[in-house]
Amino acid sequence: MVKKYKVVFLDSYGVLKNHEGLIDGVPQTIEYLRSLGIVIKILTNDASRSRLQQVELFNSLGLNGLSTSDIITSGMLARLFLEDKRIKGKIGYLGTENAADYILHIDRDSVPVSAINLEDCDDIAAFVFLDDEGFDWNVDINKTINLLRMKNIPVVVANSDKLYPVSPRDVAVGTGGIAKLVENILNRKFIHFGKPDSQMFMFAFNQLLATADYRKHEILMVGDTLHTDILGGNKFGLDTALVLTGNTIESSVDSLVTATGIIPDYICKSIVR
Amino acid sequence: MVKKYKVVFLDSYGVLKNHEGLIDGVPQTIEYLRSLGIVIKILTNDASRSRLQQVELFNSLGLNGLSTSDIITSGMLARLFLEDKRIKGKIGYLGTENAADYILHIDRDSVPVSAINLEDCDDIAAFVFLDDEGFDWNVDINKTINLLRMKNIPVVVANSDKLYPVSPRDVAVGTGGIAKLVENILNRKFIHFGKPDSQMFMFAFNQLLATADYRKHEILMVGDTLHTDILGGNKFGLDTALVLTGNTIESSVDSLVTATGIIPDYICKSIVR
Amino acid sequence: MVKKYKVVFLDSYGVLKNHEGLIDGVPQTIEYLRSLGIVIKILTNDASRSRLQQVELFNSLGLNGLSTSDIITSGMLARLFLEDKRIKGKIGYLGTENAADYILHIDRDSVPVSAINLEDCDDIAAFVFLDDEGFDWNVDINKTINLLRMKNIPVVVANSDKLYPVSPRDVAVGTGGIAKLVENILNRKFIHFGKPDSQMFMFAFNQLLATADYRKHEILMVGDTLHTDILGGNKFGLDTALVLTGNTIESSVDSLVTATGIIPDYICKSIVR
Amino acid sequence: MVKKYKVVFLDSYGVLKNHEGLIDGVPQTIEYLRSLGIVIKILTNDASRSRLQQVELFNSLGLNGLSTSDIITSGMLARLFLEDKRIKGKIGYLGTENAADYILHIDRDSVPVSAINLEDCDDIAAFVFLDDEGFDWNVDINKTINLLRMKNIPVVVANSDKLYPVSPRDVAVGTGGIAKLVENILNRKFIHFGKPDSQMFMFAFNQLLATADYRKHEILMVGDTLHTDILGGNKFGLDTALVLTGNTIESSVDSLVTATGIIPDYICKSIVR
Repeated sequence: MVKKYKVVFLDSYGVLKNHEGLIDGVPQTIEYLRSLGIVIKILTNDASRSRLQQVELFNSLGLNGLSTSDIITSGMLARLFLEDKRIKGKIGYLGTENAADYILHIDRDSVPVSAINLEDCDDIAAFVFLDDEGFDWNVDINKTINLLRMKNIPVVVANSDKLYPVSPRDVAVGTGGIAKLVENILNRKFIHFGKPDSQMFMFAFNQLLATADYRKHEILMVGDTLHTDILGGNKFGLDTALVLTGNTIESSVDSLVTATGIIPDYICKSIVR
Repeated sequence: MVKKYKVVFLDSYGVLKNHEGLIDGVPQTIEYLRSLGIVIKILTNDASRSRLQQVELFNSLGLNGLSTSDIITSGMLARLFLEDKRIKGKIGYLGTENAADYILHIDRDSVPVSAINLEDCDDIAAFVFLDDEGFDWNVDINKTINLLRMKNIPVVVANSDKLYPVSPRDVAVGTGGIAKLVENILNRKFIHFGKPDSQMFMFAFNQLLATADYRKHEILMVGDTLHTDILGGNKFGLDTALVLTGNTIESSVDSLVTATGIIPDYICKSIVR
Repeated sequence: MVKKYKVVFLDSYGVLKNHEGLIDGVPQTIEYLRSLGIVIKILTNDASRSRLQQVELFNSLGLNGLSTSDIITSGMLARLFLEDKRIKGKIGYLGTENAADYILHIDRDSVPVSAINLEDCDDIAAFVFLDDEGFDWNVDINKTINLLRMKNIPVVVANSDKLYPVSPRDVAVGTGGIAKLVENILNRKFIHFGKPDSQMFMFAFNQLLATADYRKHEILMVGDTLHTDILGGNKFGLDTALVLTGNTIESSVDSLVTATGIIPDYICKSIVR
Repeated sequence: MVKKYKVVFLDSYGVLKNHEGLIDGVPQTIEYLRSLGIVIKILTNDASRSRLQQVELFNSLGLNGLSTSDIITSGMLARLFLEDKRIKGKIGYLGTENAADYILHIDRDSVPVSAINLEDCDDIAAFVFLDDEGFDWNVDINKTINLLRMKNIPVVVANSDKLYPVSPRDVAVGTGGIAKLVENILNRKFIHFGKPDSQMFMFAFNQLLATADYRKHEILMVGDTLHTDILGGNKFGLDTALVLTGNTIESSVDSLVTATGIIPDYICKSIVR
């Protein structure tokens, strides 16, 4: 059925790879799509790695031939937002140094929340939830809440995913889950980046339009999660395919589609033929 | 301060007009902006009128010189979505015939929910909340709920506003409010169009880019509502100005900004100098 | 298993009766429970009928021997609340005259929202959502919203159910659904009566304690709805049994229990042996 | 005005004490209330200390004459619930050993989540959120989520407060905030104890009724928080007084009351005359 499309947007985790590495057969499938002349873009809710680091990771796993422009991450959109906004002052953050490096290094200072002095924080002009790692949850979540109670500044969430899988059995709270806790406590709404929001789709679509004339119905979005990949793809006007190699398992897919009203155009076991 | 910008995006109701007609001084202000070479776009959460009907209404009120391409409405985005999706079958709707005419008349049949036979509705392939008028709430809201319980089809909300002002004292439940009731009852999420969602901003921005090269920080979004105009503008990366001629009143603006964390770059009494 | 219990609390609609009348075998089952010496109470989210009207309705359907004190309704709790609060002024309402008669007739005036003059409403001291019938939704819901925007008065919801079944296929928006729409629009929280809230259980339990010494684990709550009967019973510390003669159907019960985390102690096809 | 009442229910933190100790004048006020023959009960959302520990703490601060039966805590209600439910198996928990000792020590084993083996947890029959301290948030919150994904068991939240003050400037995420994060991630609803829920009020009211005949309008609930003390008191049918010595500050009280629709009968600077 993929022959109907000129472009395929792919989620990363749960579609191309899982906790063990690449899903079996994925490199061959990508090769086949390329042989049909189908353009491929990877749309991933991830702020922990830069696009270059993503490409290197895929190479190391055995999926070659990707260029940085093939990968659109939520962290990248957060970075673009902060650049466009031309924030004057330091940017506070919760997350790893690596994420701070590539997202916030825009000729200005950034500072982890652990290093912020709440008695003297006039120079903090924005705040970013970058990652669920790289800080002490017991201490730094409360400190973030108290900082944001004092300072009414733009707050950006660089990955809106509430949870992510870490093994076939286990999940972990993601950046979006921690941000949601803080929003809930403060009764405020932050600026979230990532699927299902339209911006990631629009960014990828505009990239395509810069190379040739495409229509939305010529694009297929493939993902493993109804609430991000499929909801976002549907809303943006793309056809959508749900695969069962990640968050959504075969035994509950029908009841989930009925319960949520989020309806993929196709449901497939995996992207591998 | 407007001289810093090359483009101004304006909300309509509460910024340009109110229940009595144009706000005093608006035609002169628009004339002044044009004289500075500033491009103007109107972004409005409205699905009750086509762009042409919007232009005619502004003309009849005394604001001339607008063309249809200057006006971006949520109803228009809903129409584009339905065209792109190429839905096969009839589209059911809740709203007026006028809205159905211009939004749904895309070489296919549309049918008001009052005319749908729940015993025989296999041919309904999508549903649209068009307007809060044009139907019997006591009967047709329940009928819509029962239709959507039976049929898991794409559901579009052509105007996500939950309420709108009808006089200085009174408001009315809008299309988005009725859709929210149905979503709440069914525990489902529909596809909403309108600010604060990025799509309306992206549509206007792409229109601009087709004529010249613009950067987001060269655009000012002006609106009267924190949760739609300002939140949406902020998230899209625009500078934002809140005016106090509509939903937000001067005495509560500070506490609202603090309580919501939605921070406009400017707060002005009105768009009139 | 019912022999383990000294008391059985029963939901009404979906357990004892449905849209066609009494569920087959119910009078015999009730007779059997009485023969075992088990005390029976009916706990129902209903404000449309008084307890006496409820008893008369059960008699007319063929279930005899109930007394008014065996029936606890959410409307009754709303009435007690308004009596205790000793509100000074008129009580506005949305609903039927019958409901207003028995809930609000406490030596004071009540007035339907349709008869309230918004220009002159200083004497309205409280407001009650009584029923989903008896008013014009197109007009009176908006009028209620505008009244409550002007007047910060206690607002009571006499039946918190968001929807109720009207046939095997169809449901209708209930009093709680309309109240939720208004709360959502106004961003306020009203005072809701009905399961799963503890008050109805506490009222029934206190009635029991006035006659003899009971422990909570001697009471079984039987209902057809996870979010009201079972959640409320569990939280109050009762054992709970879900029956499949109403809102919850056999094919989805397992996935619903898993998805909601609301766990009945027993799941039975019906209360009939 | 307090002379109108026979009973006063008092919140603890923000009404009687703050981070520095007793609020100035509180012992004299309590003495005065007692001299008028007014019965005093303290209703506190707290699970970190037993009633006896609460009495000892008040004594050490300088408020004497309280007996354990004068203090109703949310932790106590959680304990009663678990006793009534007669859970068969171990109870997992998140919190301090002290809280586990007095809440869970009911002739059965309890086990902190850090000591649970997810490969072998068949014997865990219930779970309790006891406190925001006593565990490693980075590790144990995720472990709790994975435990509760596997096991559909009753989950109790012994203190529903989402945040609590730790200094005039700073707050901290409370037990209820952590539980809310987990509920949000799992899309489930736990069994919460604490104001505004009716159960704490009902418990105190039933204690009163065991000593003499009281009516609800003879009781005044005094608290510093609209969403717990005042909402709960209003709903239970009590008169309510908001004091400004804790969570709610004078400059924003009017806009908060308007925004939330939670209306105290009285607003006072403090309980001290």
